[in-house]
Amino acid sequence: MKILSREVLKEIEKRLSSYMDSEVEFILKIGNYILDSGGKRLRPVLVLTFSKLLKGNNEENDYPIAVAMEYLHTASLLHDDVVDGADTRRGKPAANRVFGNDTTVLTGDYMYANALYLFSVYGSIDMIRNVSDAVKKMSEGQLLELKKIGDIDITEEEYFKILKGKTAVLFGSCCYVGTALGGGTQQQKDSAYNYGLSIGFAFQLIDDLLDYTADEKKLGKPVCNDLREGKITYPLLSVFNELSQEEKAFVKQVIRDINPDKKHIETVKNMVKEKGGFERTLEKAKEFVNIAVKELENFPDSEYLKELEELAKYIVEREF
Amino acid sequence: MKILSREVLKEIEKRLSSYMDSEVEFILKIGNYILDSGGKRLRPVLVLTFSKLLKGNNEENDYPIAVAMEYLHTASLLHDDVVDGADTRRGKPAANRVFGNDTTVLTGDYMYANALYLFSVYGSIDMIRNVSDAVKKMSEGQLLELKKIGDIDITEEEYFKILKGKTAVLFGSCCYVGTALGGGTQQQKDSAYNYGLSIGFAFQLIDDLLDYTADEKKLGKPVCNDLREGKITYPLLSVFNELSQEEKAFVKQVIRDINPDKKHIETVKNMVKEKGGFERTLEKAKEFVNIAVKELENFPDSEYLKELEELAKYIVEREF
Repeated sequence: MKILSREVLKEIEKRLSSYMDSEVEFILKIGNYILDSGGKRLRPVLVLTFSKLLKGNNEENDYPIAVAMEYLHTASLLHDDVVDGADTRRGKPAANRVFGNDTTVLTGDYMYANALYLFSVYGSIDMIRNVSDAVKKMSEGQLLELKKIGDIDITEEEYFKILKGKTAVLFGSCCYVGTALGGGTQQQKDSAYNYGLSIGFAFQLIDDLLDYTADEKKLGKPVCNDLREGKITYPLLSVFNELSQEEKAFVKQVIRDINPDKKHIETVKNMVKEKGGFERTLEKAKEFVNIAVKELENFPDSEYLKELEELAKYIVEREF
Repeated sequence: MKILSREVLKEIEKRLSSYMDSEVEFILKIGNYILDSGGKRLRPVLVLTFSKLLKGNNEENDYPIAVAMEYLHTASLLHDDVVDGADTRRGKPAANRVFGNDTTVLTGDYMYANALYLFSVYGSIDMIRNVSDAVKKMSEGQLLELKKIGDIDITEEEYFKILKGKTAVLFGSCCYVGTALGGGTQQQKDSAYNYGLSIGFAFQLIDDLLDYTADEKKLGKPVCNDLREGKITYPLLSVFNELSQEEKAFVKQVIRDINPDKKHIETVKNMVKEKGGFERTLEKAKEFVNIAVKELENFPDSEYLKELEELAKYIVEREF
């Protein structure tokens, strides 16, 4: 895909370090530690692509805004690692393990503030409204996730609210902001937002599926990590009502166990598999991809539009 | 003071809860826990007063902005308590002890985002630039403070940079934003910012002094808490070079001790007192008050101007 080409990604990498301008060396060190550990840079790519879709090319101002969205994402990862007491992130020791909780929290705060500052210099009040609302929903989603740990009675509505905050809303915001940079109409901005939300839902559903099915080496963490942490995700949620009373009781016990037995985890995984939880999750993700593709009808046809369609489809085909 | 009257404070209290609009009950609970624990509401008062100073009265839009500044302050307190591993705040168990680090971090994030959201609805891009820059400096200041713990070689420059981030910059921002709400010129906004910075420096210097001299009951925490935590503040910093080599070595040892002896703390406190560190701190605070009062010359004379002058002077006279 051209929008994920080496040139585009290289430009993003360059800008990611140039807009980290703190005088405090520590911030640069930790910021770069997590920024250097990679990631797909999907968020800045979405900003740049929606802007290009309408303007034909990217202007200088597009980059700091694209980078700001990656900073927001990075800030939320830093705080997330503190919240989860994470050991690793993308195969490397998590920032909280290397630099301590205190430093990690404050560097996250700096990155949030720096992102908003970039918006105030290169963006608009309309973008800031959308983005700050997204950050509100992100923290709400993560808080709800925390609260629902070990809770077998979590509803689909609650699960999707968590998903929205964890992933979808920031994707939505990237597309909204990119469309605003491109001079899109309010209807186009709303469509872009919904496209982003939908691929975000699809993305996280696949993440939750891969947590059950992926190769541990590719995943960079043990499988069924969510289950181990007491988090009920769609694969299990979608088949839970079809389990027998005994099976439900067993699952409940595993979910509530702080240090569940590997064999018990395997048993739950097999239940989910046999009841068709994996297929259902994939189906649900595809539904969201279809919604996303439909939203693109509100944009003029172009090579970038096709790539956004491809990107949505790629999300459900990825293997890690 | 009329600007600190019961009516004004009551209006602020009312608005503080009405703009906390999360659907997640947890957020309201923790947000209100810390908001209810009091504080002087100096930040919203500054916003409202600078606006009134220019417009003659407060308009509806002034309140959400005033409240947003208190949310930023509250968010930073929440994160600060996690960073410091605090046990108490304003005489009550700190939020992190009651709700856990994870929930406290995320609620802080929510409050930061909600503040910026309120700015995007009721404020302007100019205000957001000033405020997001302030939040950047706040996290930088707190990080620098962390890094300098136990470091006897901290310079005055570093100390004042920490002070700026910890307290001064948000006071400055409140005054800037209030002046912007009042329709002030750029020169007035800059003067207001400097007034706020200066009273912020004075405020924190007095805080650092009271940490040595206050009555433990009024303070709500043990005296010389900074010293115990390895933090070198102005009273000690201002006399450090006048200590003998032996005294310096002793202070260094106490500063680096994770659990210093009460008697040793007392000895350092007496050294600081005898060398005149308390008077010097008070003098320094007064210098900042004078700078603050001078900045007010750029505003039209009014009853509110006199009250801002009084407020600056009150800061160095307070006893807790």
